[in-house]
Amino acid sequence: MTVLVAGWVALDEIETPAGRAAESLGGSATCAALAAARFTDVRLFAVVGDDFPRRERARLEAQPGIDLAGLTTVPGGRTSRWGARYRDGMNARDTLYTEVGVNAGPRPPLPAGWEASETVFAAAADPAAQRALLRSLTAPRATMVDTIEGYVHRAREAVLETMAEAAFVSVNDAEARQLTGEHGVARAGRALLAKGARAAIVKLGEYGAVCLHGGDYFAVPAWPLAEVVDPTGAGDAFAGGFLGSLDRAPDLSAAAVRRAVVHGSVTASFAVEGFGPSRLLTLERGEIEERCRRFRDIARIPEED
Amino acid sequence: MTVLVAGWVALDEIETPAGRAAESLGGSATCAALAAARFTDVRLFAVVGDDFPRRERARLEAQPGIDLAGLTTVPGGRTSRWGARYRDGMNARDTLYTEVGVNAGPRPPLPAGWEASETVFAAAADPAAQRALLRSLTAPRATMVDTIEGYVHRAREAVLETMAEAAFVSVNDAEARQLTGEHGVARAGRALLAKGARAAIVKLGEYGAVCLHGGDYFAVPAWPLAEVVDPTGAGDAFAGGFLGSLDRAPDLSAAAVRRAVVHGSVTASFAVEGFGPSRLLTLERGEIEERCRRFRDIARIPEED
Repeated sequence: MTVLVAGWVALDEIETPAGRAAESLGGSATCAALAAARFTDVRLFAVVGDDFPRRERARLEAQPGIDLAGLTTVPGGRTSRWGARYRDGMNARDTLYTEVGVNAGPRPPLPAGWEASETVFAAAADPAAQRALLRSLTAPRATMVDTIEGYVHRAREAVLETMAEAAFVSVNDAEARQLTGEHGVARAGRALLAKGARAAIVKLGEYGAVCLHGGDYFAVPAWPLAEVVDPTGAGDAFAGGFLGSLDRAPDLSAAAVRRAVVHGSVTASFAVEGFGPSRLLTLERGEIEERCRRFRDIARIPEED
Repeated sequence: MTVLVAGWVALDEIETPAGRAAESLGGSATCAALAAARFTDVRLFAVVGDDFPRRERARLEAQPGIDLAGLTTVPGGRTSRWGARYRDGMNARDTLYTEVGVNAGPRPPLPAGWEASETVFAAAADPAAQRALLRSLTAPRATMVDTIEGYVHRAREAVLETMAEAAFVSVNDAEARQLTGEHGVARAGRALLAKGARAAIVKLGEYGAVCLHGGDYFAVPAWPLAEVVDPTGAGDAFAGGFLGSLDRAPDLSAAAVRRAVVHGSVTASFAVEGFGPSRLLTLERGEIEERCRRFRDIARIPEED
């Protein structure tokens, strides 16, 4: 039981109405791996430069259940960096810069044995690299592809082709609209399936999420957050919680997938309570289970009289 | 068992990506009354001019369960008119004109006995007029106040004061933000209660709704609409379905209110399938119940293994 997480480990500079962080541990793979590690063992597959701070690696090493054998340091390389500023009550984000650094180079090979991972998250990346990862797997079961607007703009068809090779696709509502040309969450979700995705999760931020999977349509609201400190990484935390949950499930039934959506939603609700992945570093499984119970209460529709 | 609906009966001109309608039956009270009539008897309290088409009155008269004794024709008056155009996949609306007409004049008195109505919807109107209506009631039980952005801009404090006198407040997320200054659905909902509202429903359009009532927090997604023809009146249809459902409920318990939120959501999901209230005119209770069953399936969170 293990989730392979492939993506960026980066250093972020983030400014939100709640505060500011610089040279701070970030990246899609970091958030997803920390989230998944609340549920199952994790294999982290990413590259950093030799400028990657020793203290950040130590923080990851201190996390039980995360195998860092796939975290490669590229000699002379520069760790990827990303800067962003949120405004208007977190509803708008300006990306200030993206320094691709070592992630511009070729990916190292997977550590021996990792190609047999059954549960795999391909975080946002060039769709060709995502596809290469998916095709290298020998026993894929619960695989998921995520993307970001940049790839949708530059390589829409390649993103769609890659998505057709994963068991699950994860997008937000803007990406779903851009990928399909359809307005409306339900229409865009169905259009993703028509374009080849096998199952689609459309993330709606503070409004919840929708999951279309094997004929099942599942819609959940969001946890009623009292305070959002930093929305960065919420989608990756969702993916990590979702796949971590599925990795422990006996099957990929509709019920198991619905439970995984709730686990992903609740994990993401914790992630946004701190800067970058800071809240995930200390998050305990019991906290997730307690909030899941309350989440069920909030969303429960009573039967008719 | 009857719901008193006070608001506008109007003639609308609407253009959406799906088509166009002119001099078409509309108005907040029309939509809410037709929606509530799917659940219980309705008293319609509104004014029109003597230009109000005979065929539109005949359509309302043909609806079983709607008492038109409170639909007053003002001699020489002009029926209220409203024109709007939707664009960007229904997500943006331009109001082209609002002709207040007879609704600028004083309201006629309530028909004899109507002040004893227990379930009452005060659709969007000048907050002083809404308050006068609420204060004229002798046995209020499930009363609800709605508003629109215009009143929030011009008379924010008066809107809040009026809302404090109703059992339920109905707003969309933009109005909730403007009334409270809070970003985030949960924060804005809680802030409405802090400002005096006794219970708040925040409508999120295609994302669902949130209801805060007597310590209960309830969040529902939206019905996955395949096609939206015209979003006009969705909020009033929600209010009508919600209050019609509550009017039949033995109490205002959390379970009854949650059921009413689902009834309101589903009724609104039908309303947007046709221009103005056209779909509501033919909607049958059985269709609502069937969609409510499917809605429950879509939103059901399975228990843990």
